[in-house]
Amino acid sequence: MYTPKPEDRFTFGLWTVGNRGRDPFGLETRPPLDPVDAVHMLAEIGAWGVNLHDNDLVPIDATPAERDAIVARFKKALADTGLQFVMGTVNLFTDPVFKDGAFTSNVPEIRRYALRKTIEAIDLCHELGGKIFVLWGGREGAEVNAARNPMDAVKRFREAVNYLCEYVLEQGYNIRFALEAKPNEPRGDIYFPSTGAYLALIPTLDHPEMVGVNPEFAHETMAGLQFHHIVAQALEMGKLFHIDLNDQKIGRFDQDLRFASENYKESFFLVKVLEDGGYDGPRHFDAHAYRTEDLEGVKEFAKGCMRSYLILKEKVRQFNEDPEIQQILQEIRANEHEVLTYNSVRPDELVPPGFERTAWGAKGYAYERLDQLLFDLLMGVR
Amino acid sequence: MYTPKPEDRFTFGLWTVGNRGRDPFGLETRPPLDPVDAVHMLAEIGAWGVNLHDNDLVPIDATPAERDAIVARFKKALADTGLQFVMGTVNLFTDPVFKDGAFTSNVPEIRRYALRKTIEAIDLCHELGGKIFVLWGGREGAEVNAARNPMDAVKRFREAVNYLCEYVLEQGYNIRFALEAKPNEPRGDIYFPSTGAYLALIPTLDHPEMVGVNPEFAHETMAGLQFHHIVAQALEMGKLFHIDLNDQKIGRFDQDLRFASENYKESFFLVKVLEDGGYDGPRHFDAHAYRTEDLEGVKEFAKGCMRSYLILKEKVRQFNEDPEIQQILQEIRANEHEVLTYNSVRPDELVPPGFERTAWGAKGYAYERLDQLLFDLLMGVR
Amino acid sequence: MYTPKPEDRFTFGLWTVGNRGRDPFGLETRPPLDPVDAVHMLAEIGAWGVNLHDNDLVPIDATPAERDAIVARFKKALADTGLQFVMGTVNLFTDPVFKDGAFTSNVPEIRRYALRKTIEAIDLCHELGGKIFVLWGGREGAEVNAARNPMDAVKRFREAVNYLCEYVLEQGYNIRFALEAKPNEPRGDIYFPSTGAYLALIPTLDHPEMVGVNPEFAHETMAGLQFHHIVAQALEMGKLFHIDLNDQKIGRFDQDLRFASENYKESFFLVKVLEDGGYDGPRHFDAHAYRTEDLEGVKEFAKGCMRSYLILKEKVRQFNEDPEIQQILQEIRANEHEVLTYNSVRPDELVPPGFERTAWGAKGYAYERLDQLLFDLLMGVR
Amino acid sequence: MYTPKPEDRFTFGLWTVGNRGRDPFGLETRPPLDPVDAVHMLAEIGAWGVNLHDNDLVPIDATPAERDAIVARFKKALADTGLQFVMGTVNLFTDPVFKDGAFTSNVPEIRRYALRKTIEAIDLCHELGGKIFVLWGGREGAEVNAARNPMDAVKRFREAVNYLCEYVLEQGYNIRFALEAKPNEPRGDIYFPSTGAYLALIPTLDHPEMVGVNPEFAHETMAGLQFHHIVAQALEMGKLFHIDLNDQKIGRFDQDLRFASENYKESFFLVKVLEDGGYDGPRHFDAHAYRTEDLEGVKEFAKGCMRSYLILKEKVRQFNEDPEIQQILQEIRANEHEVLTYNSVRPDELVPPGFERTAWGAKGYAYERLDQLLFDLLMGVR
Repeated sequence: MYTPKPEDRFTFGLWTVGNRGRDPFGLETRPPLDPVDAVHMLAEIGAWGVNLHDNDLVPIDATPAERDAIVARFKKALADTGLQFVMGTVNLFTDPVFKDGAFTSNVPEIRRYALRKTIEAIDLCHELGGKIFVLWGGREGAEVNAARNPMDAVKRFREAVNYLCEYVLEQGYNIRFALEAKPNEPRGDIYFPSTGAYLALIPTLDHPEMVGVNPEFAHETMAGLQFHHIVAQALEMGKLFHIDLNDQKIGRFDQDLRFASENYKESFFLVKVLEDGGYDGPRHFDAHAYRTEDLEGVKEFAKGCMRSYLILKEKVRQFNEDPEIQQILQEIRANEHEVLTYNSVRPDELVPPGFERTAWGAKGYAYERLDQLLFDLLMGVR
Repeated sequence: MYTPKPEDRFTFGLWTVGNRGRDPFGLETRPPLDPVDAVHMLAEIGAWGVNLHDNDLVPIDATPAERDAIVARFKKALADTGLQFVMGTVNLFTDPVFKDGAFTSNVPEIRRYALRKTIEAIDLCHELGGKIFVLWGGREGAEVNAARNPMDAVKRFREAVNYLCEYVLEQGYNIRFALEAKPNEPRGDIYFPSTGAYLALIPTLDHPEMVGVNPEFAHETMAGLQFHHIVAQALEMGKLFHIDLNDQKIGRFDQDLRFASENYKESFFLVKVLEDGGYDGPRHFDAHAYRTEDLEGVKEFAKGCMRSYLILKEKVRQFNEDPEIQQILQEIRANEHEVLTYNSVRPDELVPPGFERTAWGAKGYAYERLDQLLFDLLMGVR
Repeated sequence: MYTPKPEDRFTFGLWTVGNRGRDPFGLETRPPLDPVDAVHMLAEIGAWGVNLHDNDLVPIDATPAERDAIVARFKKALADTGLQFVMGTVNLFTDPVFKDGAFTSNVPEIRRYALRKTIEAIDLCHELGGKIFVLWGGREGAEVNAARNPMDAVKRFREAVNYLCEYVLEQGYNIRFALEAKPNEPRGDIYFPSTGAYLALIPTLDHPEMVGVNPEFAHETMAGLQFHHIVAQALEMGKLFHIDLNDQKIGRFDQDLRFASENYKESFFLVKVLEDGGYDGPRHFDAHAYRTEDLEGVKEFAKGCMRSYLILKEKVRQFNEDPEIQQILQEIRANEHEVLTYNSVRPDELVPPGFERTAWGAKGYAYERLDQLLFDLLMGVR
Repeated sequence: MYTPKPEDRFTFGLWTVGNRGRDPFGLETRPPLDPVDAVHMLAEIGAWGVNLHDNDLVPIDATPAERDAIVARFKKALADTGLQFVMGTVNLFTDPVFKDGAFTSNVPEIRRYALRKTIEAIDLCHELGGKIFVLWGGREGAEVNAARNPMDAVKRFREAVNYLCEYVLEQGYNIRFALEAKPNEPRGDIYFPSTGAYLALIPTLDHPEMVGVNPEFAHETMAGLQFHHIVAQALEMGKLFHIDLNDQKIGRFDQDLRFASENYKESFFLVKVLEDGGYDGPRHFDAHAYRTEDLEGVKEFAKGCMRSYLILKEKVRQFNEDPEIQQILQEIRANEHEVLTYNSVRPDELVPPGFERTAWGAKGYAYERLDQLLFDLLMGVR
């Protein structure tokens, strides 16, 4: 029942199962994982697809011949296993050249180099069959705000995305972009710190239809924002092109925990909004195993992400069919969708005769009962 | 030098100087302040304008005759003092009828009542000469997410703003709307939790040109977001219609502290982005005096807000004229504005010959020096 | 199975079920609840005991005769229902006199008045049969740190607790004190912001044996601290005299949510440390119903607190008996308690021959598996 | 005036100026700094002393002969420059062997190895002339709380400190321990998350007089706790054995920013409590330069830490001599130190005749004025 199937569209990045357990205070605890081995492992445990940054596969200083050999070997692994390649992205954060930004760097040559690197990563994504390209501006931020006008940062980032859209159009690639926000880390503060800020940028682009968002559970949660709310907004606006599933505690470093391992309740509502809201894109897990784990633990981690998603999906089904829950929802009129337009209801008709403000203020909403029923349902005791 | 003048465009809400010091654990420490007395006090200390919620002036259950008498008396105070009326807003949070939302309530009758109440507040704003109307959806959120589909919340809020725009257009009022975000409090989580989320909503409205944002220092700061970054984004997009100035510590209840009293450095950058970025709207202080203060302390509070703004504005001038600071900015190329379009620079021309990634990665940016010069400048020791 | 019994030792404060739903932005949504009615309701739903602040029962300006009449009527309700009176505390935060602190006020007269008020609350606690007296210094803090030397705050608070201990000893009361920490709200920052700070104060008191702590889930969680860790430290030190159970999101205003309604996993570990760790004091719920609820909702809220505790207690039993979980715990040697003293193992004997640092660094700990088993267990799918 | 002198007792760790700019998302941006070069640089810019972890100087796998040669060369650098060696500590976090804890590991062999490594680091500290030994338990925490009883963590940590005290006593070293708390990072949650928790542990040790605390600005600030409050508590209790000065934004990853570069106001109060409170230990800067900096920038960073401290120290002097500020402090009775004991004032004498609660509640405290004067003073405009 909780065994992943291709139609579940579960994907992992090479960098997730390949994470070696290094952190700011400690060395790697795991050996490198060959991307080909990662592909085989993911196929074995039931994932549908795989994603990568350019440099997860091809080193930044590889020659063209080396690059082609590496890519050919990786494509063979995909073919051998049937694993899909789904999403590509570009690493604009590891190399010291990007230490003060890539698309928003003050240095024009660095901005240009970042664009060039991204174009080559887009080529790689296309070559592997990917149709989604994620842009995460991890270094686009500041500790020293004296050094850059933040309005310039907005302009430069827009200019870069416009450039990339033109490239994709000219090449005729079937690729869309998904912008990924994060409030901080590795920069003290990152521009476009929440998914909303990127959703706001998109309509100001030259080709807004080509660009959506890639919200990440951990990133919004770091700032204490309710993740499934912003996912719902993106989905309602037709802009949820991709999603990064993981877990995180509020107000601390980026943890990238196993999906649903920390915030059980919020993970339930996230699965609910995705499943009920008609999201049909990949369910991408952007997480990694604890530093205590060996390769066997990494497998358990990856299996756990998928299993927990499926368990919560089943809980969503139970919720939607639970008679007592559904009766409360009907009583509180959660599903009434009156369409109110200026022409259908004039200002002086708004308040129905007999409307009693005080009575509505005193009425009980049964939300304690409703929330307790959800607790019982999630705990498996009803 | 630090004495406020009308052209500084400083405004206060009636609810700010009128705040009585009640909090969740304690009773009021100050007597009520008559709105007419507030107007006189604000004029006396050098403010340019005043703002209000409908119920700051007119009780929710006033009769039309009572309402008109109150408004007439208030208009006389404005005329007597020369204080401008600048911004109006509606209280959709105090009355128990709104306990589970106004525009996003599940109950259609409550949504309609909220619209009606807002329309009357818009009428009041227009009557007093205000041209900005702020919408803060303090109750539009949830603790019990089982009770509402968050996609419905987006749709209902949009429907409400569309309705209000039609009303203003039909009436021929010269009024624009400014949407104010907040992550939480009084709700566990509020929809559209950051200014970015509202900036994203606006292009999906029927009349996007009529709607901008009203970012508040405390609200973004509660979530640890860098306030002047989002202000810069709104300003760059032409959507900074209003601003709420105050102060706040990250990660706690809404404090509404005296402007610049807590985050000296961030307040400097905020004033810098407003002054350098060409913002010409009101400088509204949405703050209140400590609970320890009497009316004399309230006056000191209000005077302090304006004084600190002017001190920081002078620091901005010094920063912009400091030769050593400006030389560093030139060396780090902070002000180079190369326009890079797909047609002007082709993909294969992006990286200039001789670009050395490694050398750029090793280059020092002198940001410690720059940031220390700022410290010295703000401390008045250079 | 999940029906509360007296031996579960569940208690509620009068202020919890009596909370009227007022918040900083909204008026009361519920009518007052007579303390006598509260007692009957708590008895009816299966609570074991009740707690109160002095002014929950007796108004601050009651005459002695009024006070005695109120207390007599309350005692009758206790007698009629068999509900225990368990814990008393003093309200040193609502009245404006305490706006800048009670025990730590700069004003000696106010410090003396606070002591006097506390003594009378201790008398009330004793008269009602309570044996625990909680001190929460909600106003002992600052927004304006220029106004008080924080070392004075420590000294004054210590002086107050020493005074109160002498009083209890002289009266011969069988009462112990429990100090309750909170990081902020209603003050910008409260002295002794975490339970650890109070645990540190206790050994410097004149009668440390009379004083322990009352950690509150919401209070530590506001600051993002792991609640059950600090509970474990207090319990290990023999200082867990009382506990406040509720729920809360990190980094925001004090929510006082229904127990276990938000952080399912952390609530499980809390119940585990209390049950496995031998805590035998009251399980006090310091929470309140959502503002949307009427009296029926308040009852559901109170029932939900107890039910969720019992559900989690049963999960603890399952965890402790789950063979696969216990096998992992054995493999990771979670329960080995080697006692290492300087005399038993000399410095040059510490490292056993053949100890391989590298091998231990590479070993997998199976923590992903273990944590996933916990998820499955809590979700009721194993 | 702001030039550091030996009597300022400024110290830096080798790891601070030697930080190479690596972070979780990016590679090193600076070459290694030879410890001998670090010593010369620190002496040149006016530091008084230097501190180190064992492995900052001696690699974990050095042979005894290598170790001795390295140490001899380092001692020569100290002698050549006159720089003091002040504090030593042990690295129990970098090597994978400590991935699930050192003193609190479930594995007895690892706990023993951690003790052995610490003992050798203590020997090194003593050999270099250090009299303070810091213990930071960076890996003593958990993500998977199922794996360890948190009460065991307390017991094991106590056992380790007791062991180390015996060793120091037996060796006759003149060394005291300082325990350093941190709420999280690199672990999801670290045991003893705040300085208060360690202050509480100390009285339960076998030799409490040998053990104090080493509070760090960034660590308490991560959790949003007011740093100078806890420093004041430690100082009042005679337990402030060492201090880590740096800066940090609330609610995010450990930033270790240049001292006073972010929280100007709180840094002022910290310097005030240290200078006014009689702290005579080293002023240790546990920070590092931005990743954008080269070695020149690192020097600017280190100079900036000291300069800012001296600027703030001068501001403290001005504050203490400012007549208007001092007059307000006198009016609000900030410096009255009535000693109130049970024998000196009996319970029925506590409230002086004529005490008026309501009048005190209405009185203004002039805190807005006081706080504004501080702003003006810090900005250098009075």
